Amino acid sequence: MFTSKKRLIAVILSIAVILTTGFMMLTASASDENQVKNNYSGKTPKYVFLFIGDGMSYPQIYSSEIFLGKKLYGDSKIGTSKLSFSTFPVEGTCATFDAETFIPDSASTATSISTGNKTLGGIINMDTERKTSFKTITEYVKEKGYKVGVITSVSLDHATPAAFYAHQPSRNNYYDISVELAKSNFDFFGGGGFKQPKGSKGDQTDVIEIAKQNGFKYVNTKEGILSLNSESGRVIAVNPVLDRDKALAYEIDRASDDLSLSDFVKKGIDVLYNPKGFFMMVEGGKIDWACHANDAAASIKDTLAFSKSVDQALQFYEKHPDDTLIIVTGDHETGGMTIGFAGTAYETFFNKIGYQKKSFLEFDKEIAQYRENTPASEAKLTDLLPSIKESFGLITSEDADASKNEGMVLSDYELETLKGAFEQTMIPAKERKLSERESILYGTYEPLSVTITHILNNKSGIGWTTYSHTGLPLPVFAKGLGQEIFNGYYDNTDLFKKMVSILKIDIK
Amino acid sequence: MFTSKKRLIAVILSIAVILTTGFMMLTASASDENQVKNNYSGKTPKYVFLFIGDGMSYPQIYSSEIFLGKKLYGDSKIGTSKLSFSTFPVEGTCATFDAETFIPDSASTATSISTGNKTLGGIINMDTERKTSFKTITEYVKEKGYKVGVITSVSLDHATPAAFYAHQPSRNNYYDISVELAKSNFDFFGGGGFKQPKGSKGDQTDVIEIAKQNGFKYVNTKEGILSLNSESGRVIAVNPVLDRDKALAYEIDRASDDLSLSDFVKKGIDVLYNPKGFFMMVEGGKIDWACHANDAAASIKDTLAFSKSVDQALQFYEKHPDDTLIIVTGDHETGGMTIGFAGTAYETFFNKIGYQKKSFLEFDKEIAQYRENTPASEAKLTDLLPSIKESFGLITSEDADASKNEGMVLSDYELETLKGAFEQTMIPAKERKLSERESILYGTYEPLSVTITHILNNKSGIGWTTYSHTGLPLPVFAKGLGQEIFNGYYDNTDLFKKMVSILKIDIK
Repeated sequence: MFTSKKRLIAVILSIAVILTTGFMMLTASASDENQVKNNYSGKTPKYVFLFIGDGMSYPQIYSSEIFLGKKLYGDSKIGTSKLSFSTFPVEGTCATFDAETFIPDSASTATSISTGNKTLGGIINMDTERKTSFKTITEYVKEKGYKVGVITSVSLDHATPAAFYAHQPSRNNYYDISVELAKSNFDFFGGGGFKQPKGSKGDQTDVIEIAKQNGFKYVNTKEGILSLNSESGRVIAVNPVLDRDKALAYEIDRASDDLSLSDFVKKGIDVLYNPKGFFMMVEGGKIDWACHANDAAASIKDTLAFSKSVDQALQFYEKHPDDTLIIVTGDHETGGMTIGFAGTAYETFFNKIGYQKKSFLEFDKEIAQYRENTPASEAKLTDLLPSIKESFGLITSEDADASKNEGMVLSDYELETLKGAFEQTMIPAKERKLSERESILYGTYEPLSVTITHILNNKSGIGWTTYSHTGLPLPVFAKGLGQEIFNGYYDNTDLFKKMVSILKIDIK
Repeated sequence: MFTSKKRLIAVILSIAVILTTGFMMLTASASDENQVKNNYSGKTPKYVFLFIGDGMSYPQIYSSEIFLGKKLYGDSKIGTSKLSFSTFPVEGTCATFDAETFIPDSASTATSISTGNKTLGGIINMDTERKTSFKTITEYVKEKGYKVGVITSVSLDHATPAAFYAHQPSRNNYYDISVELAKSNFDFFGGGGFKQPKGSKGDQTDVIEIAKQNGFKYVNTKEGILSLNSESGRVIAVNPVLDRDKALAYEIDRASDDLSLSDFVKKGIDVLYNPKGFFMMVEGGKIDWACHANDAAASIKDTLAFSKSVDQALQFYEKHPDDTLIIVTGDHETGGMTIGFAGTAYETFFNKIGYQKKSFLEFDKEIAQYRENTPASEAKLTDLLPSIKESFGLITSEDADASKNEGMVLSDYELETLKGAFEQTMIPAKERKLSERESILYGTYEPLSVTITHILNNKSGIGWTTYSHTGLPLPVFAKGLGQEIFNGYYDNTDLFKKMVSILKIDIK
């Protein structure tokens, strides 16, 4: 009995092997990854910049290049205007899937880039069991004597920056993450602030105090930040102007005299510059947030701000061309942004994006005010049409400018869609019960705001398919020592391997 | 008077110059395209393959790799399985805008690749005035003594293949295009047939006759095609099995003993192989058609068929590694395909794609039959549910398999959507009047079929935004002599320039 059962199993197994082998042959190069160039034997760069545009892939970059091109050429010709990094001599592509999904989050993807390991969504530099911590590229280079800087336009304890200094079972452990920052031996942290500086209940030791005891200087005035230099020592520089999430404002909302991501990169370089070298990670974090909300204007403006921050590294590169490497990539695409929409077919109208004057988030505030001050029985969309015109340029056929600006006139269908969204928006979020159809229309966003950006984006020729991330592969741009090994189509864990090889790190 | 007017103009002009210069500085690297590597001085390849996946960009490639990975690993792990060309040692990215839009068609993009010039949509190898013809890469290499082959899975007179032998003010001049083919001195044409072999009215000389008089052998039997070899002379090989558009069947619909795109590449190599060299352009044309219809299963299967056709070139490469160059790219993205959808958020379920057994086009035929045989008053969606289950795996909660296969059960919202589409589908296409909303929902497709693929794709985690093309940049994969200059982020016209440099063509 046993024997025949064993025989049966053997037969099944050998059939399985034959089938598998057959399939492997069909997909010949399934595991032929030996073409990936992760070995570098040239001169080691002293200064390494790693820029990560959160949520930024080809659509975010190319839409920004089209937007710039439209501004530059108007209707005189069709052309793009490249971003600072899109003329880098080397460009490659990387895939982003993590240990559980093809649509990963920022925690697992940043873990891949920072440590070369795939893990589950939400985990910062630990294995899928949340037991073993992974050593980060920043920890390795610090041991080699490099100074280390971490800069972001969102809060310093957010997943992407966290993956360059912390090790936590959950990205939501904001306090524990910021304590790791405060206790680290790194040299510069700059940009946004801390979400829970005294813990989730506000009863823990202030991380700023811990950081100070560990030798950090804490600077949070514009003047103080602008006066930082190579004599400043180890610094935590937090922008005095922060939003509700302790992030820098969306670039589209930023007051012109407030500090920008670019300013933080410039000051980061000033603080970190030393003969032994530095490694700086810079995240453009709000590209992702804008794309979650399907707000193309905010995404484009933040991508341009990110591009300008890369300009700071390029200026540094010009002075130190023989010692510098600049890498620019994303962590995943967000929103399923496409340059093309069913209603606009083969045309785009990116000038329409220019009508938008504020982010969805700022408009949300106007809506909230209206909702609070208006009894539900008296609320009507027409009350908000002047604000919609002012902030997004969209008008009805009855508007005085309708004949002059037909492209911005809402169609009957668009107006109908807007009315449906307005009705939902007037219900306070906690009482709102969305149907499956409405969830797809609005996600978890303010129904009116997200419908406005959908309409404006669609009219411009931009589409969206999700409020989450997508699996789209990412571009990797490289310039400087070791640039050549960033060419090809590889995995995001290869980014770590490439940096390790270029920096001649012994990962044991 | 005149003088002051002139002075005013001069002032305005100088302000304009200052403003423009200022803006140029802001977007520093606007025209800094000198990083593009279009110069090659190494050994000239004798055998050059240019594969173009029509409508194929990162989403089409990566969705196919996920589909293969899902088949290979099941639920045991997350991973992709690479396509034949996605392990090529060099990968670059190219932008696709033409002379009038960021969302170009196959005529203008193929003109860019074939001649290095941007033109208007619909034009084949002529300038935007439709006056001057551009010389194609194939004409140049023919003059150098190379044999030339053009292969496609759609009709031989379609825009992409046409751009490698014809020069026409309109891609719709099918007869004139095919006459250019028949009168050409090229060596192999293979794949689909001709849309208007005797002209649009059927009253012109058969292009096959013209071709025969010009020395071509016309072969249109499977046996005849499979027996082609280097002694066959100059050949036009048309698949005996063609669809209504004179194209090969969608791969998902192809009978296993019918010829595939891969077979045509294999026979093309057999015919073209000679000591002086050859240049072969191969188009995977139905990836585009599947994506226009938002049919992910058909897109994936045709992308895999395209990948297998590249395998033929790889086998040739193994025998002639010192003389061969293989380039694989697309011409534009189609459909705004994204790997991510609002309803599935961070998850994908690519196994569900596997339930689809036929293309939307084959299902259209079933619908047409039902519409013809059923009085409108008696038509009901329930009649078609068994076919929908058989062809797409989608079932209602009342289906016997519902509890076993919950993932394929239509939600109330999906069923509602299906019912709306069914109502429109039962109206003959010519009498159908779609609202703006319905146009966005169905495009110009059979409402029921496109709604079914939308639902199945969305359930799998795939989104779409258009029935047209999009502006997404494209990957360019290269392997062989000259591969290194395909790295970077450049324009589609650079593809021509790179080939010219590699092939040492004097374009005068």
